[in-house]
Formats: sequence, structure tokens, C-alpha cells
Amino acid sequence: MIKFKVTKQSGKARIGEIHTPHGTIYTPAFIFCATKAAIKAVDTERVANCNTQIILSNTYHLMLQPGEDTVAKLGGLHKFMNWSKPMLTDSGGYQIFSLGHGSVAEEIKGVRNNTKRTLIKITEDGAVFRSYINGGKYLLTPEKSIQIQQKLGADLIVVLDECTPFHVSREYTEKSMRMSHRWAKRSLIEFQKNDSGKQALYGIIQGGVYEDLRIESCEFANSMPFFGQAIGGSLGSSKEQMYDIVAFTTSKLAEDRPTHLLGIGGIEDIFYGVELGIDTFDCVHPTRLARHGSALVKVENRNSLSSKRKEHINLRNQRFKLDEDPIESDCECFTCLNHSRAYIHHLLKAKELLAYSLITTHNIYFMNSLMSSIRKAILNNTLKDERKNWI
Amino acid sequence: MIKFKVTKQSGKARIGEIHTPHGTIYTPAFIFCATKAAIKAVDTERVANCNTQIILSNTYHLMLQPGEDTVAKLGGLHKFMNWSKPMLTDSGGYQIFSLGHGSVAEEIKGVRNNTKRTLIKITEDGAVFRSYINGGKYLLTPEKSIQIQQKLGADLIVVLDECTPFHVSREYTEKSMRMSHRWAKRSLIEFQKNDSGKQALYGIIQGGVYEDLRIESCEFANSMPFFGQAIGGSLGSSKEQMYDIVAFTTSKLAEDRPTHLLGIGGIEDIFYGVELGIDTFDCVHPTRLARHGSALVKVENRNSLSSKRKEHINLRNQRFKLDEDPIESDCECFTCLNHSRAYIHHLLKAKELLAYSLITTHNIYFMNSLMSSIRKAILNNTLKDERKNWI
Repeated sequence: MIKFKVTKQSGKARIGEIHTPHGTIYTPAFIFCATKAAIKAVDTERVANCNTQIILSNTYHLMLQPGEDTVAKLGGLHKFMNWSKPMLTDSGGYQIFSLGHGSVAEEIKGVRNNTKRTLIKITEDGAVFRSYINGGKYLLTPEKSIQIQQKLGADLIVVLDECTPFHVSREYTEKSMRMSHRWAKRSLIEFQKNDSGKQALYGIIQGGVYEDLRIESCEFANSMPFFGQAIGGSLGSSKEQMYDIVAFTTSKLAEDRPTHLLGIGGIEDIFYGVELGIDTFDCVHPTRLARHGSALVKVENRNSLSSKRKEHINLRNQRFKLDEDPIESDCECFTCLNHSRAYIHHLLKAKELLAYSLITTHNIYFMNSLMSSIRKAILNNTLKDERKNWI
Repeated sequence: MIKFKVTKQSGKARIGEIHTPHGTIYTPAFIFCATKAAIKAVDTERVANCNTQIILSNTYHLMLQPGEDTVAKLGGLHKFMNWSKPMLTDSGGYQIFSLGHGSVAEEIKGVRNNTKRTLIKITEDGAVFRSYINGGKYLLTPEKSIQIQQKLGADLIVVLDECTPFHVSREYTEKSMRMSHRWAKRSLIEFQKNDSGKQALYGIIQGGVYEDLRIESCEFANSMPFFGQAIGGSLGSSKEQMYDIVAFTTSKLAEDRPTHLLGIGGIEDIFYGVELGIDTFDCVHPTRLARHGSALVKVENRNSLSSKRKEHINLRNQRFKLDEDPIESDCECFTCLNHSRAYIHHLLKAKELLAYSLITTHNIYFMNSLMSSIRKAILNNTLKDERKNWI
């Protein structure tokens, strides 16, 4: 029932369609984080009106609150949150391990924050961790992750893997990758037991920054009947290294499957990814940025307003106090059609929650416009030119 | 340009129309608090879609942030916040004096909280207070309050008065009332200097719990060419006393002017007020209640869900965890058409901002439905029966 087809190729970049029971996702596409079954501060009708194709929820958060059985009793995630378009859930692993090992962002910043670490142990069986809500002990196995994701009922689901950080050794990365492969096999077997045809399973490519390990992981994934594949694990300590690893990895992957790049959402990174054959992206960046008061803007709207080479403008800045223009004059999102930078600046200063709704709305619309422009550019073989409008 | 007419009378209750440059307000009407030029957590399009007729902003908050001159430069309050329907601003006095004397709510609860008091002194000239934002010293005079309200540009504006609390002496209440009358005169003179015909001025009735003082205040207001009148000051220490004072006061007021009851928004209180001839009400209650997780419900939807005699249900309650019904099955607000109690319960537990948007939306729609039902009931002389659906 769930199918992927590539409809146009331009270099390694490609346009595709993922057909799901909740509609078609036109790729390249961006997947927005509705972590706890809600896009923070924006209702699902508004999210859909921003031309959003697909959102994701996090298994880790939902298994702890309200619990997968509660969501199942309430008719599954789509019905629970009233979202009728495609959805993805992750395996729960990323949060457990990033809370255990420290997040990728902390890693890049050199932070080693040992507070809030809730991972108790990792064994061949799975991961034992504490609930951040009530301190209760949980065991997440590959089988359990699949069972939970089947109860949640998203269209696209993901195998459990150990997400290794950059600072671990090659030896650890290798051992962990092999275990993740065994976990992936167990995930697949569990998935097939109750496969309704309404969900599709993604494998995950591990191997850290090591080419031979990445090859091994790609070959493993290619040999298994996964629907798609997600590139995970450490992508290095710099943007350059990340692009190298993604380039190398995508070159080894089965081309008839959709490829997802986990946790990447910067505009420049998306262009690199698309050029390397990535079909879908997800990241908290656009929505989190909004809650920090920053709005994504195109190059032409950025240069005059931001001295630094940033992809966004910070609406808390005093320069916007009397600025009657919308965030972007050529944007047709709800926020830009209705409100000025000056008003949003005021809302931020006054700590009004509405500020977060309005900027999040713009940033979601912006990302969807970006992806739509990218798809058009691939169709017309003009991706290099299109890039200039955004970076 | 701004006119009021009574179109139907039933006992002391009445239906009326306040014609303003931003449209007609059908009374009895409820005025929602958009304190800092925003209804907390809900955008103006949604607020309008809830059948809202009129909102208010607070002069006190806006003069401190972003400042009346900023709002004026940005085209006035309506344009600033993108609200095209009628608006009211208060004088700024209530916040200054309630922060100085302690609020009415604190009074009823017997709380005497001396922290956060920012009132420095009250003189014949006006009130000196400190900004809660940056500690800066401000002087608010009757003239200044009118100048600010003229810059903000709401349709209905209010004279500056000293809002006396319950615990002050009769002597203080009397002296304060007389000063408020002198302030009202000064407000009126200032208003008339720059009267564009696009704003209308309300006087305020003071006199606390003392009948003779209330008579004096009503006679004063009736003798001045105010457009409308608001009942302010202490309404006593119990609901019974409040109803007595309102009944007594409305009986002494000019009947051809709209009468506003300041800061009252409970369903039962609204029915009492309407029966005593009140035309408009305002209160933070419906929107603040929402931010505490509680939704207003009609009697028929309340009895089975709340053991106490409350006008709302608390959606944080565990009983709603698996409840697939909307807040009210017969409600046509955005929230009830789209989301279940179970989902909102989850959002509250997960501390998702969306919970506040969704419940606020319902509570606004609810209050507007209540007022609409009241207007219909007055038209049909069935107010007593209608009351049973709500209390």
C-alpha cells in the first residue's frame, strides 16, 4: 500500500512521491516535529494550511505520556491529534541515547552536560532508562519500539538503533553499529508479524565518521527489505565532514528507496542534502527557532536586516519596533498576511504566547515554500540557480 | 458618530446597539481582555471567528510597553494588532490602584499582599507609580490618560478614577469619589479638546458600598455629557452585597446611556447584571480560566462531569484521559469541532501551549454564545427560563 517512486532525476537530486494511506508526500520534503503529538503553539488546521505534507511525533515522549495504549484506545495518533495527512514516528532511540550520551548539538558546542542523563544501561536486549516525568524505569527493545509504533499508527516508522555520538571510539562505533544491525533485523521481524500494509519501515544507516563502517551499514540495509532508509549516527564535528559523510553514504544506498536525513534542517544543509540525493529531512530547528523569536527569511529579505550571515532575523531586535512590514512582504503565510514585524516584536517583548504561534506559522510555511521551490528547480534542472534565492 | 439605542426592554433587562466606527455591538455583550494588545494565545482571526464583538486593551500595560506613541505611529491599536471590530481601552487607573491597594480578588480572599506594590502616591494631580517593567517613574493624570487613549484609538474609552478597595473607610471612599469626579470632569474637558467623533467616553460610578455616595456619583455622572457609564469601585465583600449595590446603582442611572459593569464575568453574575440593566461586561475570567486548564460548560454538560457547583470543568482531571468527546458536544467552536477532551487533557499534562489556545478559543466562543442566548431570551421575554440552561 505504501509506495515510493522517483519521478525526475537531476544529477543526484531527485523528485519523488511517497504514497501513504494518508496521502502522497512529494519529495524532497521537510518533516516538522510534533514531538508530543502537537506542533508547539500551532493547531493542526493552521499547520496544514501552511502546505505541510508530513509531521512526526516522538515515540520516546509518547510512550511516557500519554502512553501508546492510550493513543491506541483513542484511535491512533492521526485521530488523537486530528491530523489527516502523513506522519512518521521515530523509534524512541534518539532521545534515550542523546539524553544518555549527550546530544549532537552539545557535542558540536563541546558541552558535556551530565545532568538530566536518564539512560541506565544498554544491552543486547535493548536500553533501560528512566522516565523524565516520574522517574519510572523503562526497557525499550527493538520489538517493543515496533509494537509501540504500530499502536501509534504513523505511516512511516523506524527501526530502533543506538545513536552513537562523535566522541566515542571507532571500536565503540563498530560494535554499536553491529548491534544496531541486529536490532534492525529484530525490528523488521517484529514489524512483519503484524504488518497491516498501512505502515512502512525505515532502516537506519550507522557507522559514524568511518567510511568502511558506513559501507558495511549501507550494504546491510540494502540487503534487508526495508521500505526506506534514514542516515543516522554521528556525522562528524563540522559541516564539511557532515557533507562528506552524507555524500559517501548516499552513493552506497539503494536508489529505489526513499532516503531520510535525520535531524538536519538548516537551509544550506538541505540544499547540500538534496544535491546528494536526500528525499526527506526533519529537524526541530524551524519551530524551535520561532520560539526564540527568530523568523526564517529568504536571501533578498535577509541582507538588509541582518549583518551576520544568518538564515533568519531575530524579531526581538529593537530595529523592528516601528517596522510595519510583515516578516516577508512576498510571503503568503497567515502571519505575513495579517501581522507586522512591529507587532510581533511587541508580542515578544510582552512575552505573549501569540508571538510563538505567529512565528512558528511563518517558519513552517517558509520551509514548505523552500521545499516546493527545490522540487520545481529539480524539475527544471535549475537547482544551482534556485540555491541563490535561499542561501 | 458613536450612538447607543435600546431596541427592546424586558423588565430592567434590555437589548441595545452601540454603533461605532468599527461596527455595531449588540448588547448585552461581553468584552474580552486583550491586555497587551493580544488575547493570550489566540490570534485575532480566531477571536473574530468565535463571534467576538468587542475586545479591550489596557492603557496601563500599553503605555509602558510598547508605549502609546509607538502604537500611534503604527496606525493605532486596531491596525497595530489587526483587529477590525470595536475596541475599548480602560483608563490605566485600575491596574495602578489595584497594584497599590491590592486587587478586588485579593480582597475577597482576605489576602494582603504587599509585594509588587508599585503605586508611589496619589495626589489631586494624578497617580505616580513605578513601571513593573523597568522601574521607571510615571505620572498618570486624567488628561494624560485621555491623551494616551486618544493615541491608542479604541472606540470606547474611559475616564481616570481612583479605584478604591473594600477595606478603606467611608471617609476615604467619599473623599476619593469626589476626587474621581473632579478627575472625570478634567477627563471630559481633555477629551472634548480633540474629540474626533470616532471615540466615545464613559464616566465611572464610584461610592463603594454606601448608598448615599452611589446616589451622589450617579447624579454626578448623569449631569455630565458622558456617552456611557461604568460601575466601578468596591462592590462589597460578598456576591449578595455586589448584587445589591449594582441593583441600587443601575436604578439611579440615566437609562439612555449604555452601562458597563467593570471586571465581572461569572455566568451567574452576568445573568444578575443583565436583569439589573447592565449592557456590557468585561473580565479576564474566561481567558484566564482557560490558561488554568478549565473550560466553561453549560449546565447540561456540567452536572455529569463536575461534582461541585462550578461553571467549568477542569480538563487536567484524570477522568478525561480517555474521553473522546469534545468539551461540549453541541458546541461549534473550532476546538469542539476538531479536538477531544482526551487530547486537550494530554496537551495540558505535556505542558503544550496549544492547550491554552484551544481552551481559550472554546471559552471565548462559549461567552459569546451565552450573550447571544441572553439577547434572544430578552427579545422573547424568556430570560428566567434561559438562565436554567447556564446556571
